[in-house]
Amino acid sequence: MRIVDIREKTGTLATTMRNAFIDFSQMTVSLVAVVTDVVRDGKPVVGYGFNANGRYAQGGILRERLIPRILKADPKTLLDADGANIDPFKVFAAMMTNEKPGGHGDRAVAVAALDMAVWDATAKIAGEPLWKLLAERFNKGQADAKVLVYPGGGYYYPDGNMQKLKDEMQSYLDDGYSVVKMKIGAADLATDIKRIEAVIEVVGEGSRLAVDANGKFDLETALAYGKAMKPYGLFWYEEAGDPLDYALQAKLAKHYDGPFATGENLFSHQDIRNLLRYGALDPKKDWIMPDPALAMGLTEGLRIIEAAEKEGWPRRRIVLHGGTQLALSMAAGLQLGGTETYPLMFQPYGGFADGVPVEAGYVALPDAPGLGIERKAKLYEVMKTLAA
Amino acid sequence: MRIVDIREKTGTLATTMRNAFIDFSQMTVSLVAVVTDVVRDGKPVVGYGFNANGRYAQGGILRERLIPRILKADPKTLLDADGANIDPFKVFAAMMTNEKPGGHGDRAVAVAALDMAVWDATAKIAGEPLWKLLAERFNKGQADAKVLVYPGGGYYYPDGNMQKLKDEMQSYLDDGYSVVKMKIGAADLATDIKRIEAVIEVVGEGSRLAVDANGKFDLETALAYGKAMKPYGLFWYEEAGDPLDYALQAKLAKHYDGPFATGENLFSHQDIRNLLRYGALDPKKDWIMPDPALAMGLTEGLRIIEAAEKEGWPRRRIVLHGGTQLALSMAAGLQLGGTETYPLMFQPYGGFADGVPVEAGYVALPDAPGLGIERKAKLYEVMKTLAA
Repeated sequence: MRIVDIREKTGTLATTMRNAFIDFSQMTVSLVAVVTDVVRDGKPVVGYGFNANGRYAQGGILRERLIPRILKADPKTLLDADGANIDPFKVFAAMMTNEKPGGHGDRAVAVAALDMAVWDATAKIAGEPLWKLLAERFNKGQADAKVLVYPGGGYYYPDGNMQKLKDEMQSYLDDGYSVVKMKIGAADLATDIKRIEAVIEVVGEGSRLAVDANGKFDLETALAYGKAMKPYGLFWYEEAGDPLDYALQAKLAKHYDGPFATGENLFSHQDIRNLLRYGALDPKKDWIMPDPALAMGLTEGLRIIEAAEKEGWPRRRIVLHGGTQLALSMAAGLQLGGTETYPLMFQPYGGFADGVPVEAGYVALPDAPGLGIERKAKLYEVMKTLAA
Repeated sequence: MRIVDIREKTGTLATTMRNAFIDFSQMTVSLVAVVTDVVRDGKPVVGYGFNANGRYAQGGILRERLIPRILKADPKTLLDADGANIDPFKVFAAMMTNEKPGGHGDRAVAVAALDMAVWDATAKIAGEPLWKLLAERFNKGQADAKVLVYPGGGYYYPDGNMQKLKDEMQSYLDDGYSVVKMKIGAADLATDIKRIEAVIEVVGEGSRLAVDANGKFDLETALAYGKAMKPYGLFWYEEAGDPLDYALQAKLAKHYDGPFATGENLFSHQDIRNLLRYGALDPKKDWIMPDPALAMGLTEGLRIIEAAEKEGWPRRRIVLHGGTQLALSMAAGLQLGGTETYPLMFQPYGGFADGVPVEAGYVALPDAPGLGIERKAKLYEVMKTLAA
């Protein structure tokens, strides 16, 4: 077998939402298809991938660097021992040839989209859902039948409408979610506290609400928000300061004793490891949330889990950012803590298989081979144009 | 005045050199021209920029994100108070609109090339060499008349030829350099020690030789090299381990008491600050070497210097990586420790103005307005095609 072609194009997101740092109306996403010569059900197996939102399409890096290196490699060198399937680790090494260490940013996003497509193809060739293949290869066959999910939402509506925010949160409860999340930091503290109280009115108690500052605060502001939010007993306080300012995180931890969550803007196991070494996070109460669809894919995701465990973190404290089917497959097959999802935002890329309901905050897994992209009709409609 | 156009294209490097991590035969570089409507000597002022080597051209990020944001901005919002010149900080903010924090990689490289062109145009409009403009604006008018430079070289020749390595080093001495640098880590320790001894034969003593592992070593290997190299009293031991593994650097410092140097693969002030917070480097003997032509340009370079000073580092311990005319201008106008240069490699982008000799390890500054690109004929020949 061999990889016969790799295609990419840029997709757009039609959303007017914004968080404390950016608005998403200009956001783009890279879509990737890895076409193989393996035939299943009369058709060539194609693996699909895309990057999670927040970091834009990476067509230049994919076209100029990553894809040519794979297509130029001797196809045999990209296969597993018996030559019947792709070895994703070998493909990863091929695409990273002549790339210097450090500086994990847009490159990590491009790698993530491509690596996702490679693993999707690999699981399809194996004839298994990716979560099951992961359980067998990396988790002694153990997998979770359902995964804890929370909806990424609570963005700032363009008109600052509080009722729309409450309606959005009610819709999550109606859909079966038990914890919701909202953005803070794009308004002043007093306004944000009003927004928090409005959402708590809907969800019933602070312990069902997580808040996310998207790295906006300096230490003083982070402390002021912490002090003001303490009485609500929130589910978590996410990304208070710059994602690389581990010292700020460590200082904040001395004044706010509720759970923290961070990690979505750290794109390598080295960066996540630094967070755990220097950020004074507590594996008993805090959460780390790398995004495999931004941070070099599943292949690097396995290294991130390994690095976290070496630093004393049980993998149940990892709740993956991004709400992709990749994150869901990893959370189930590697028995992580759970994953975000975007039932309303970032469509058609966010969310899971059609017709799988969220029950008491948990979602079940698709039984389709690969990631399950074919089970999400609107996503598959976009992705399959790459294989046409 | 206004910026009327921003153009970019990809340049290639014709070199067969390699370091411990990559070979440079496929390396590309982004070239940028910022065209203004200001006329000097009968021609529109054009600022030129490019990224330093090692991280590839970033055409996708420039074309799809950074350049459109600047061209779309109200031109008045990009000018200084009296509207007579560009305000590079405002242009920087415009290009970074809707970019999330963290993940400083390829984006930083794209920003670096564009920011360099913006500052070149700004200094040309001001009618001053950039080093002089920097001294006036950010260094109380003080500048160095000459800058300590060392040649980035000593790569692995494709055939492992030791005589070629020695000849290369002799050529640096003949050209007036007092300290040379060579790569280690792409061969085994015994071979590298032979290479080190061969170069010391040429330069006379270990204190005139720096070595660079390009982030290749794990802790055990880094320690083994440190132990073997200790007797030579080398000028510095550069980037032993992964550039983000500050803990490795700190452990190595307990066993090797010679000077260290690192920082070229850290692309933001947050990353450099983490190195200084956690890497156990010593401002009395060690060196930090950010590369402004990779790490978001001069604008972020000023923040890096500020962050380093806050961590207790005198700016004389900053020796800029990359060997660009931007690095030279910054080293002189901000009175840093010096800069690398590439007299042989990475042409035509490496090196300084034509006809300015290196004397006793120091190079003088050009008096041309801007960066001085017009004073380097082979570089200007390439760059000016962007303005045609």
